Amino acid sequence: MDGPVLPSPGARTAHRPPRGGRIRVTDGLWRLWQRVNRATSVPLALHWLEESGALANLRIAAGEEQGAYRGPVYADSDVHKMLETAAWELQAGPEDTSAVLAGFVSRTTGLLERAQRDDGYLDSYYQVAEVGGRYGRLVDSHELYCAGHLLQAAVAAHRATGETRLLAVARRCADHLCAVFLDGPGPGLDGHPEVETALVELFRTTADARYLTLAARLVERRGHGLVGRHKHGARHRLDHLPVRVAPAVTGHVVRALYLEAGAVDVAVETGDDELLRASATRWADMAATRTSLTGGLGSRQVGEVFGERYELPPDLSYNETCASAASIQWSRRLLLATGEGRYADLIERTLYNAFAAARSVDGRRYYKGNPLQRRPDHAEAVGDPRSRDEWFYSACCPPSVTRLVASLPHYAATTAGDTLFLHLYASMALSCAHAGGTVALRIDTDYPWDGTVTVTVERAPAGAWALGLRVPPWSTRTWLTEPGGARQPVAGDAQGRVVVRRRWRAGDSVVLELDMAPRLTVPHPRIDAVRGCAAIERGPLVYCFEQLDQPADTPVDELALRADTALRVRDPADLPGLGRTVTIEAEALAVTGPHQAGLPYRTHGAVDTRRPATATAVPYFQWDNRGDGAMRVWVPLEESGAVDC
Amino acid sequence: MDGPVLPSPGARTAHRPPRGGRIRVTDGLWRLWQRVNRATSVPLALHWLEESGALANLRIAAGEEQGAYRGPVYADSDVHKMLETAAWELQAGPEDTSAVLAGFVSRTTGLLERAQRDDGYLDSYYQVAEVGGRYGRLVDSHELYCAGHLLQAAVAAHRATGETRLLAVARRCADHLCAVFLDGPGPGLDGHPEVETALVELFRTTADARYLTLAARLVERRGHGLVGRHKHGARHRLDHLPVRVAPAVTGHVVRALYLEAGAVDVAVETGDDELLRASATRWADMAATRTSLTGGLGSRQVGEVFGERYELPPDLSYNETCASAASIQWSRRLLLATGEGRYADLIERTLYNAFAAARSVDGRRYYKGNPLQRRPDHAEAVGDPRSRDEWFYSACCPPSVTRLVASLPHYAATTAGDTLFLHLYASMALSCAHAGGTVALRIDTDYPWDGTVTVTVERAPAGAWALGLRVPPWSTRTWLTEPGGARQPVAGDAQGRVVVRRRWRAGDSVVLELDMAPRLTVPHPRIDAVRGCAAIERGPLVYCFEQLDQPADTPVDELALRADTALRVRDPADLPGLGRTVTIEAEALAVTGPHQAGLPYRTHGAVDTRRPATATAVPYFQWDNRGDGAMRVWVPLEESGAVDC
Repeated sequence: MDGPVLPSPGARTAHRPPRGGRIRVTDGLWRLWQRVNRATSVPLALHWLEESGALANLRIAAGEEQGAYRGPVYADSDVHKMLETAAWELQAGPEDTSAVLAGFVSRTTGLLERAQRDDGYLDSYYQVAEVGGRYGRLVDSHELYCAGHLLQAAVAAHRATGETRLLAVARRCADHLCAVFLDGPGPGLDGHPEVETALVELFRTTADARYLTLAARLVERRGHGLVGRHKHGARHRLDHLPVRVAPAVTGHVVRALYLEAGAVDVAVETGDDELLRASATRWADMAATRTSLTGGLGSRQVGEVFGERYELPPDLSYNETCASAASIQWSRRLLLATGEGRYADLIERTLYNAFAAARSVDGRRYYKGNPLQRRPDHAEAVGDPRSRDEWFYSACCPPSVTRLVASLPHYAATTAGDTLFLHLYASMALSCAHAGGTVALRIDTDYPWDGTVTVTVERAPAGAWALGLRVPPWSTRTWLTEPGGARQPVAGDAQGRVVVRRRWRAGDSVVLELDMAPRLTVPHPRIDAVRGCAAIERGPLVYCFEQLDQPADTPVDELALRADTALRVRDPADLPGLGRTVTIEAEALAVTGPHQAGLPYRTHGAVDTRRPATATAVPYFQWDNRGDGAMRVWVPLEESGAVDC
Repeated sequence: MDGPVLPSPGARTAHRPPRGGRIRVTDGLWRLWQRVNRATSVPLALHWLEESGALANLRIAAGEEQGAYRGPVYADSDVHKMLETAAWELQAGPEDTSAVLAGFVSRTTGLLERAQRDDGYLDSYYQVAEVGGRYGRLVDSHELYCAGHLLQAAVAAHRATGETRLLAVARRCADHLCAVFLDGPGPGLDGHPEVETALVELFRTTADARYLTLAARLVERRGHGLVGRHKHGARHRLDHLPVRVAPAVTGHVVRALYLEAGAVDVAVETGDDELLRASATRWADMAATRTSLTGGLGSRQVGEVFGERYELPPDLSYNETCASAASIQWSRRLLLATGEGRYADLIERTLYNAFAAARSVDGRRYYKGNPLQRRPDHAEAVGDPRSRDEWFYSACCPPSVTRLVASLPHYAATTAGDTLFLHLYASMALSCAHAGGTVALRIDTDYPWDGTVTVTVERAPAGAWALGLRVPPWSTRTWLTEPGGARQPVAGDAQGRVVVRRRWRAGDSVVLELDMAPRLTVPHPRIDAVRGCAAIERGPLVYCFEQLDQPADTPVDELALRADTALRVRDPADLPGLGRTVTIEAEALAVTGPHQAGLPYRTHGAVDTRRPATATAVPYFQWDNRGDGAMRVWVPLEESGAVDC
């Protein structure tokens, strides 16, 4: 049952992943995501690996096909990420398509075996398109980035299915990297981190300490000008300051987040608390000042970079899909390392909002950028999203979605001492070795549509052990019913959890009821871009207003929420295009302002023209499944309830 | 005394420029700008014409020097624009540097004569760097753009000093353009409009109707795909819709504004009311929905384009200096064409704010982009301005400033029937042929620091005639004292003017007192970027808050204005770095918000931490003359006056 991020026995972590059993999603939204992943997204991605030339590049490298290299320099990574996806999918359980997936893994592993050079090097771009250019321009080449994804695929295949052929390819590749970058001075550092975390994961799988040593070396050497000069500058390529001292996340978001994952992996495996603290400090600053309400990261489309503190434009932010996935991966590592609840909070926020919105409900199309506002009339906006696409020339995002969805159950739980913690709620069957025996749980919930989570112990060791249930910070009134007990109000502890310790018997169940009352959320006063606005949230879900749900005479751009509005929550229902959802109605105003002297400014004291309207919000993650109209999460808040007409 | 924009006798315009006399600035801010222009900016620009290679390119084209072409493809235009500057400077009056300027004009005219091809073609890039590429990629080549600035320089030299040699060069160039683009089908249209307005001005100077015909043809042919394909699309190059029907300004701002100037010029000379109305409609939409409070135009740095309606970010807007100058040039044409006061209003707003801010007080350095907010910590912002520079690789902006400042007096007045209108106020001596005789006026004012304008008639024809004085829309209480009369409250007419018609005698004076009370200005509710903010204005000046004027413990980013604040105006004074200025003090708050659950969001109802502070504002146009700290025009407005501590 092992999944991504598996600290080795000697690692210094507060929590551990559950092991020695199985995690299986049984129903609900997660199950829907898994089904769509398996039935639609994965087959489509495999089609595109052919269509884009990514597999052909490897066949050309293997000498089995003629032709020119196609796609970006890092096209190999799309193949590797789909291998990783297929591995987690196969682990999740047999389905109609299992043979197809196994065939893909087997065939592609063979292809990689044949394409790999005798010295272990494997990168089709430098074997086909730029022969002799190997490691010549690491600032842009993505060679170690691609190698990293190969390693991660092999680790996934091994953990998921016991597969060893791909692991052998990965080991030859990693041995080659050790020879070049560890034994010698090395030709520099990759402009796109990723191999660091992959090397640690390979170390965890193989117990070959050289891989950990190399990962630590690559993390440590950053910030000393070894990446090479780039037009976007050293900050963009994460080479401006040593990882150990950099005070804040900066530069290209996905590069930064992958590097952080590697830094935490190295820190826990080497017991390097200073390195861990540095990463955790950057995480806290990122959460407090550079994170969209949806968990999306990256305020600027140009350069795909973090913004500065509180620079969080709803319309122009990039919030790349890969960044959402990478954020979840970094937070998962910090959750294991420290056991602190805030990391699970951000995982959940990101998962249900920025990440889930990237893919269409039908699993066919993806956003790379995930802004919190769309103005369809903004024809000239830089990278303004029009609609989702099946695939991209730079196709990093779709496989980032498929591999995370395929491995999602592994993010639900951790263990620490005698406590088994549940951090994310979905209908699941979970068994693992725990407290000297085997624990089997069944979790039943309609989360995130409903806040009730019922955990039933189906099998338990004889002695006492504890169940730790996360209470998200937004749940202001929470109730717990212990086996045979009464429904009691509870509050989370300092880490935002309630812990029930007892001698469990099969059939015992605990019921957690989270507060699903909708809430009006306002931004910190330093966020210029959404000053005077509010957003609606309910449970873990951020809501948005799509044009097609509003009255015909009320453009979303003219919408304002009354500060004293009631928020009416509709019962869960299947809506065309959205599937199961919960909509929320709010008392709103349509605001139009007169111009003064022909300009869009006027002397303070003049009054807007306002008329009442009812606004309807849907979960942000379900947006743009019914047409391409305007959308916004943040809407102006009218403190005064007065209405003109 | 003729200046830029001189409609021909047959043109259909409501107003005319004053003619047959002289306009001379005698004192005050305009005189300071002129002095700095002459003493510092112009000599520095001439230095940079050599340093950058712009003059060397022409010498190479003339066969007088060896070497490679340097600079952007349109480097010739810098030379032409400085020729135009020198012409207006020589017209403005003799000073110590007049011989230097006359020498520059004479020498450079000789150089252009020798560089010009026998067929009239003159563009050093295509004569030196890309020989044979003439008219091969008009979408980018700027060949007609450069030719346009050559024509404008020649027209300026002729109007200013009677010079004819440069005019002969321009005519040969224009005759060549007619042969290529009028007599034949032509190789397309320039991706950067500018030659259209220049051809009409040359027609006005030479009475050669072919130039007007060619200008009309170039305006009319746009919007039919003749410019050629460009990565930024047809909208960016103003080739998406015919000029006659396009509903709104779009694309590259400076290109769009130069095209509008040409369209209005063609319209008034050909009596084409439909074309004029189309341009005026776009102007009104631009003013109402795409104009910064400073008059700055262009909401996006990438592509240097207009934003969509109400897209007016204070920090990210480009507001290019050339766009401010071009906006004033377009508005001047519409003012002459229609006589409507709103065009003078925008000219004044743009002149004293977006335009004037571009150059440092000492005349040495320029901004190309003029945003309304600077965050010094935003190291990775796209094109974030750091500080002004003396010159640029793409050096369009400095000569746009120098040529407009040199010709500024020509923008002050118009005539219509028996009325002589003053639209902009500065201490000036103005004489012109009017009402069957000669009118000579002296205007005394400390505008924009003070609102009192005294107009003294020094010479007048015997019969009755009228003086029309603009009353800006911000002057809510205006007073007028007619010769021998009492001080009376007045209001502007439908065009925002008071008109005094009488038989004038030498020594008669009229005193206009405009309302210089400072005001809090708020944005239209559709402007997302500055929602909940206010700005301070006084008279024609927009104010800003620079960090160095605020209390040490109050970062500009934490500043908020109390909605009920008094605005205390200091007396005009000389301040170090700024020269003469008027500062304004406001009651403010320093606002810091707690975070909730480690994120920059919280449930509505939580209260910010606020403490009182006094904020000091200076005129925006004087910003960044004393250091490179934070600056903002728009500051959050706190409707409630409550203070925590």
